[in-house]
Amino acid sequence: MRTRYNPKALECLSEFDRYVESKEDIQKIIKENSGKKIYLEIGMGKGDFITQLSLLNPDNIYIGVEVSKQVLFLAVKKLQRYEKENNIKINNLYFMSFDAINTAEVFEEGQIEKLYLNFSDPWPKKKHAKRRLTNERFLDVYKKVLVKNGKIEFKTDNRVLFEYSLVSMQNYGLKFLEVYLDLHSSDVFNIETEYEKKFSQFGPIYKIIVEY
Amino acid sequence: MRTRYNPKALECLSEFDRYVESKEDIQKIIKENSGKKIYLEIGMGKGDFITQLSLLNPDNIYIGVEVSKQVLFLAVKKLQRYEKENNIKINNLYFMSFDAINTAEVFEEGQIEKLYLNFSDPWPKKKHAKRRLTNERFLDVYKKVLVKNGKIEFKTDNRVLFEYSLVSMQNYGLKFLEVYLDLHSSDVFNIETEYEKKFSQFGPIYKIIVEY
Repeated sequence: MRTRYNPKALECLSEFDRYVESKEDIQKIIKENSGKKIYLEIGMGKGDFITQLSLLNPDNIYIGVEVSKQVLFLAVKKLQRYEKENNIKINNLYFMSFDAINTAEVFEEGQIEKLYLNFSDPWPKKKHAKRRLTNERFLDVYKKVLVKNGKIEFKTDNRVLFEYSLVSMQNYGLKFLEVYLDLHSSDVFNIETEYEKKFSQFGPIYKIIVEY
Repeated sequence: MRTRYNPKALECLSEFDRYVESKEDIQKIIKENSGKKIYLEIGMGKGDFITQLSLLNPDNIYIGVEVSKQVLFLAVKKLQRYEKENNIKINNLYFMSFDAINTAEVFEEGQIEKLYLNFSDPWPKKKHAKRRLTNERFLDVYKKVLVKNGKIEFKTDNRVLFEYSLVSMQNYGLKFLEVYLDLHSSDVFNIETEYEKKFSQFGPIYKIIVEY
């Protein structure tokens, strides 16, 4: 997501009480919530999806990761506005900023119940395939932090990325639980991301749920 | 494929020199062609696809299977017309009629190089899922007659059947080689079936190539 540069973003971000900056801090939070299941979204953008998930499931902990701090700042502002308008505080949702490849340096083995990947960067050029979040390098990283039989839910509108991901995930040995080639025509519960609301009119949304 | 009943079909069929009625007869043909690779299409309909394949690859043997003898008769007539118009005889193409579930009673272990499934009956009701040609019962049968690392190429325009097949084939342990979620937008060689020519205007054609 391309966004206008805001020089104050970093400063404001660190003032937000549920922005977690370090491994130590998130581990402390996980310890304080021991017994609760932890769900992770990598590449959350403005965070609509994970915010709605956290509202629907108050007994779980949700952590949204966005590599761009500029974008993350927009998610914080959006959440703050939502909380103010509705006079609530969402206590089971945290935001972090790091590169997906470093996920196993932030979380420990078996800490994450399920991982969400929504409308990840397609990296359309073949020479950039290694950067796609469903490349085996990343599947290796996710495996380290997921519980045994941990799951990934992956959604995209990018046909070529989904074709690639089906092959990559099968070749890696992940078990396919559910596949949708036109999610919005399927009769299943779906939380739309902000991107999905805008772009699903132009073509099908693809989704897969896999298990390690 | 629903077709008008022709009471003469059976009689005419048995007069066609490349209609093979029994296991013994097809095994004799395979023996006579030893050293050549054998390709099978199950559910060939009027046979456009396998006829074109056999013309393009004269060194291989092609066998088209169609459970309905009424439909198979239409394929024979179409082939005869084609041969007459072009003043040729296609010597590497044979037609048979049996139920897909009996494939391993017709062919022996490792005889088939590759299997084609094109626009198979979707059997849309869940209670009929076992009848879909990508159900594990059938994947078991194909395994018996395919060579080691034998391949299946499967095409359909039916979204739900393709979703089902992705899960079924992954769960069975087949290796995904190529997946296309809109074959006609992909830059790959494709022989269209008669069904495909008619119906691809209404939505994407899905294709997968898997290996045992």
